[in-house]
Amino acid sequence: MKTKIRIGMVGGGQDSFIGSVHRIAANMHDSSELVCGAFSSTKQKSLDSGKELLVDQSRVYGTYREMFRKESKLPEDVRMQVVVIVTPNNMHYPIAMAALDGGYHVICDKPMTTTLDEAVNLQKKVKQNKRLFCLTHNYTGYPMVKEARALIKGGKLGAIRRVVVEYPQSWLATRMETAGQKQAAWRTDPRRSGPTGCMGDIGSHCHNLVDYITQLKVEEVCADLTTFIKGRPLDDDGSVLLKFNKNARGIMWASQIAIGEENGISIRVYCEKGAIKWCHNDANSLYVSHLKKPTEIYRTGSEYVSENATSATNLPAGHTEGFYEAFANVYRNFMTAVSDSLEGKKVTASKYDYPTAADGVKTASFLHAIVASTKAEEKWVALQKE
Amino acid sequence: MKTKIRIGMVGGGQDSFIGSVHRIAANMHDSSELVCGAFSSTKQKSLDSGKELLVDQSRVYGTYREMFRKESKLPEDVRMQVVVIVTPNNMHYPIAMAALDGGYHVICDKPMTTTLDEAVNLQKKVKQNKRLFCLTHNYTGYPMVKEARALIKGGKLGAIRRVVVEYPQSWLATRMETAGQKQAAWRTDPRRSGPTGCMGDIGSHCHNLVDYITQLKVEEVCADLTTFIKGRPLDDDGSVLLKFNKNARGIMWASQIAIGEENGISIRVYCEKGAIKWCHNDANSLYVSHLKKPTEIYRTGSEYVSENATSATNLPAGHTEGFYEAFANVYRNFMTAVSDSLEGKKVTASKYDYPTAADGVKTASFLHAIVASTKAEEKWVALQKE
Amino acid sequence: MKTKIRIGMVGGGQDSFIGSVHRIAANMHDSSELVCGAFSSTKQKSLDSGKELLVDQSRVYGTYREMFRKESKLPEDVRMQVVVIVTPNNMHYPIAMAALDGGYHVICDKPMTTTLDEAVNLQKKVKQNKRLFCLTHNYTGYPMVKEARALIKGGKLGAIRRVVVEYPQSWLATRMETAGQKQAAWRTDPRRSGPTGCMGDIGSHCHNLVDYITQLKVEEVCADLTTFIKGRPLDDDGSVLLKFNKNARGIMWASQIAIGEENGISIRVYCEKGAIKWCHNDANSLYVSHLKKPTEIYRTGSEYVSENATSATNLPAGHTEGFYEAFANVYRNFMTAVSDSLEGKKVTASKYDYPTAADGVKTASFLHAIVASTKAEEKWVALQKE
Amino acid sequence: MKTKIRIGMVGGGQDSFIGSVHRIAANMHDSSELVCGAFSSTKQKSLDSGKELLVDQSRVYGTYREMFRKESKLPEDVRMQVVVIVTPNNMHYPIAMAALDGGYHVICDKPMTTTLDEAVNLQKKVKQNKRLFCLTHNYTGYPMVKEARALIKGGKLGAIRRVVVEYPQSWLATRMETAGQKQAAWRTDPRRSGPTGCMGDIGSHCHNLVDYITQLKVEEVCADLTTFIKGRPLDDDGSVLLKFNKNARGIMWASQIAIGEENGISIRVYCEKGAIKWCHNDANSLYVSHLKKPTEIYRTGSEYVSENATSATNLPAGHTEGFYEAFANVYRNFMTAVSDSLEGKKVTASKYDYPTAADGVKTASFLHAIVASTKAEEKWVALQKE
Repeated sequence: MKTKIRIGMVGGGQDSFIGSVHRIAANMHDSSELVCGAFSSTKQKSLDSGKELLVDQSRVYGTYREMFRKESKLPEDVRMQVVVIVTPNNMHYPIAMAALDGGYHVICDKPMTTTLDEAVNLQKKVKQNKRLFCLTHNYTGYPMVKEARALIKGGKLGAIRRVVVEYPQSWLATRMETAGQKQAAWRTDPRRSGPTGCMGDIGSHCHNLVDYITQLKVEEVCADLTTFIKGRPLDDDGSVLLKFNKNARGIMWASQIAIGEENGISIRVYCEKGAIKWCHNDANSLYVSHLKKPTEIYRTGSEYVSENATSATNLPAGHTEGFYEAFANVYRNFMTAVSDSLEGKKVTASKYDYPTAADGVKTASFLHAIVASTKAEEKWVALQKE
Repeated sequence: MKTKIRIGMVGGGQDSFIGSVHRIAANMHDSSELVCGAFSSTKQKSLDSGKELLVDQSRVYGTYREMFRKESKLPEDVRMQVVVIVTPNNMHYPIAMAALDGGYHVICDKPMTTTLDEAVNLQKKVKQNKRLFCLTHNYTGYPMVKEARALIKGGKLGAIRRVVVEYPQSWLATRMETAGQKQAAWRTDPRRSGPTGCMGDIGSHCHNLVDYITQLKVEEVCADLTTFIKGRPLDDDGSVLLKFNKNARGIMWASQIAIGEENGISIRVYCEKGAIKWCHNDANSLYVSHLKKPTEIYRTGSEYVSENATSATNLPAGHTEGFYEAFANVYRNFMTAVSDSLEGKKVTASKYDYPTAADGVKTASFLHAIVASTKAEEKWVALQKE
Repeated sequence: MKTKIRIGMVGGGQDSFIGSVHRIAANMHDSSELVCGAFSSTKQKSLDSGKELLVDQSRVYGTYREMFRKESKLPEDVRMQVVVIVTPNNMHYPIAMAALDGGYHVICDKPMTTTLDEAVNLQKKVKQNKRLFCLTHNYTGYPMVKEARALIKGGKLGAIRRVVVEYPQSWLATRMETAGQKQAAWRTDPRRSGPTGCMGDIGSHCHNLVDYITQLKVEEVCADLTTFIKGRPLDDDGSVLLKFNKNARGIMWASQIAIGEENGISIRVYCEKGAIKWCHNDANSLYVSHLKKPTEIYRTGSEYVSENATSATNLPAGHTEGFYEAFANVYRNFMTAVSDSLEGKKVTASKYDYPTAADGVKTASFLHAIVASTKAEEKWVALQKE
Repeated sequence: MKTKIRIGMVGGGQDSFIGSVHRIAANMHDSSELVCGAFSSTKQKSLDSGKELLVDQSRVYGTYREMFRKESKLPEDVRMQVVVIVTPNNMHYPIAMAALDGGYHVICDKPMTTTLDEAVNLQKKVKQNKRLFCLTHNYTGYPMVKEARALIKGGKLGAIRRVVVEYPQSWLATRMETAGQKQAAWRTDPRRSGPTGCMGDIGSHCHNLVDYITQLKVEEVCADLTTFIKGRPLDDDGSVLLKFNKNARGIMWASQIAIGEENGISIRVYCEKGAIKWCHNDANSLYVSHLKKPTEIYRTGSEYVSENATSATNLPAGHTEGFYEAFANVYRNFMTAVSDSLEGKKVTASKYDYPTAADGVKTASFLHAIVASTKAEEKWVALQKE
């Protein structure tokens, strides 16, 4: 009989937003259960969170190191199998490295690390230790994003010419971080968030979304990152010109001070014979245009969409699948890979369609380049060759 | 320490659509667990479904009667506490009556029963047995539907004049029921679906949505139900003129043959000083209009919305909450009521904001009247006084 | 060399809304010029309006009778050729009859007359006198409405099953008519507006739009007209169930008290194999749905639309064509017919695609039936056979 | 009595798109009449066009020089008063200079000239000769664009932080210019179009729209113009990073190869306390956002909009005003200025709200800088100080 995969969580305690998202996503398809955690910075807070989450108090730990050590001593059919990392950015790297060294598979929130060097090291470690690693770039979990990728890959739309990707938000339009909002506090703090604020937080999603859908490589960037809120040490807004391989061009912008916007990530890809548009605000639609024909509205759950989208769809067309469902699709695919791996099958990440450490390195390289470009006097800054 | 409420499910086996929706909704807030079930018409199918659902095979039953009988013999802290009914419509009544007699709380998919008499009996039984009963009219679980209700109730928009409610779908635009689609087969079969097809299935949602948001009573109807697909014994489309108390008027239509439509339930309420519009296709927005002012777009998760909506919201604004989340809100509210009841608190349904047997009776009365009206020669048919 | 057709206008003075619309529509394609008018109820007001409109004062008249009489004595190459009637509804009939008797072609605002009898008489007169008559149902002038008609006519979408047409407005949501608003004053006055208010004013457009696009006949109606504003003698809101020939069904509603709505006429036609949707708010788009394919967005000015739409399009796609342009399309088609007629060609209205007296009779018959139905106790009222 | 202002047109013959737009815009408010023209490159074509346009053949000329010379000899109350220039871009400058020297007022299509030097000279000439000059940046004619300007100017939204402006089109997505499309032929030819293609044609509108609404100055640019269609000598796509005065930042992109797009100019302005969004596709709406309040939809023709918008509105709310109406608003304002000037009043352009030669210089300076930036190796190129 099928059993649930056992998850241990680092971070994600009572004040966390993303911890709860991960738990609901993990729950949705019933493939895993939360068995232990080091949820907070202090043991007592961790215990309190564990109580709420119905986790056995004996398996709530004060630190991730304690968790990895003690879990490893539990019987094999009891101890956790996958570590979920939902801490501030600066902790992703040490925790992931320790988890991999502990022999655990890892699910890590984005951005993977705060520097490119760390990202490269982490990717190496994943390979060396032959563990599975999933980076939760959740927007790739939407069925219509998968459909966009399939359409571009299918070739009917022709070569890509121009990409427009944006991610406007408004939540940091005022100085929330000094008003007791913990999410805002660490995200605008370079020690915890890393060298970029807005770009690391949501520009990273833009990059991953472009990468996933277009399968192009960003080769050069010209970036202008800005901080609009006085006293904030990190960028809260920025624009980037993009040069891709295959002569494609593009533009990316992200902002956390764009009043009226919520989580408005969107992408438009203009090709030789057609184009696609996808907006998070209307995530179950994909607009597909063709030369001299009416634009078509592809819809999640419809009969005519490809297997790539269908396999990520839970409900008939018209039953909106939202943020949790997309996130749960990332989890489902990764958990299938973990399950196959536990059964001794050979697992190739690309078959399972989830974001990997390699994706994390690509985004880290992009972020590295745009931070450099913002300070540069020359127009174009090349990304490091992989 | 908090414990999960134990659920037993009747119906919802491998071919079911709504069974899986109930399970995911129940799972989402981690407040319940599925402990047993009579999932299918045969024991073997039920066992197979149970295996997939990770339910202990010893608690998978061949019939609901067997389940009620055997569960009642289990220790009190083991046996199921709530029965979830997700069978074809005609079975809701006998199962619910038996469950209530067995002392279980009940969650029942809509429509509550196939006749008004049954509905009235069921409501009486709920009262007599002092059990809790939840009817899963899931659309009332959307935060912006709750906001609409709060706005109307608040009185700023003035008295209601006109209501327009519709629910167009396309899935029965061809004769699916003879093509092996099981969902279509029972929904178009009067023995299993009851005296109406389209109206019982989705017109019932329209009625409940109007009732919930406007708090008006339908007093008289003039209905024209139709069957467009040859050979189909039940209505697949229909329109109804509505007279409400307080001199309000309205129109309702629903269709299962409306090509291009998915699950397009929407409602517009025009009042003396303003109006609201809500569409399932854009479920996280509520359009609020006022005399001589710009229309406002209220959004799920925003700071300015009322507690009614906020308490049904999981995520910050812009993180789309979809069908499962709305459904899970119904579950969450009901499970809170059940939990309070199990702790010995007195539970008044209206405080917990979930659809009850009384709502089921109101909708049954409405459906009864429109079926009568379709056959009538006089223009208006009055609903039975409650 | 081409010359402009000479227009005389009855009504449309300084306070008029629709008079100015007719003049701009007439001007747009430069095919006509305003040469004379009886613009207002008094000679002085008429002269003032004429001055503003740059009409020679000698050809500004105190009454339409004076205008018809005096113009007829002018040289043939000077006197007006077409009478435009833009008065309150009750005057359409006597003026049109007199104009036709004077030998003029006629453009008349809708509704054609206030009673069915008048409509029938007027149609007869048009035939007898062999004059051309245009009824300005301007919504049929939109290219995407013409495309909708062509698509339905083409047959690919299959037989029509259900029609939904609506026209919500808000401008009479308060008692404007007692607040000095002249438009509101005559439109809510039965002596000037006729036996219906909302229905005659905008329900008439709904009927004509359905008739034009579907080419079905309304055979029976069940109507519920209402007055929401106390003291208003005519309906300001209403709903109608529709039975068409060929077993099609439908629903129509119109309201002048629907706060938040502007001129929201829209139509949806669901057929056996597809469907179309058109909304005035987004008049340059037509949504075309098909079984098991993505919905397509047809756009005014695109290469793939039919000649019917293209010939009514002035600008490349994306250059919004609005209310005036649609109105001007009605004018253009009619003026082409007039021009051909003046050149002695035989003119068959259907070739020129403009609304005729026959259309006026159909709508009058519809309005007659819904007024009767509102008072009736039986459910269905049949339209008179033509 | 009011008389119509007499217009002579250079260019705008039978194959022209924009000539007809100017004529319809001029006609709409009846304030002017076309009395003469040099419509085409040859006398015969010009005569043919004149015939169609009902212009007296004696006043149809072979060249603009002939027109200026001969018209000047006509009696003062007969000869043209305003020259309309609707030729390819390279001819704007010589014709405008000659027209101003001839003592005529001038309406010129955009871009004003093909170089910055010419633009500066032309502006000087306008001042010296004390003639009125109107540049038809028609998008500023939309009521909701005027409302946006008024809202920003009013200050309630606070200081501007970020501007996003874009203008995607698809019409040059294939090599139309070699397929006999005359519009495409001259617009992609550097001799007739000037040193930029896409940017001069539509990027110029972006710049003017930003300038009009925000009243900020672009100080530095970083541009990446591209040509995607092989063999095309001018840019057909491009992106620009923008630095404004007052520390505002922005991004602009325009494309003529963006399949699926029509004339999708749009602007978003994010400020300290709010934001506005306007899209040409939905030109009668303006989305106005505020911190912690619902976004509002301002609509053309509504009671709550400012005088700036109302004075540019012809119809009640909901009667879509499109491209012609916006264009006609530019004409109306300019013709009012001309009329006042002809009556001897002192005319200050800013009071009349139409685009002037000063606006043309600003845009020329912007275009000059982005062409330079595309070739530059340094990141930022400053605009010349005015």
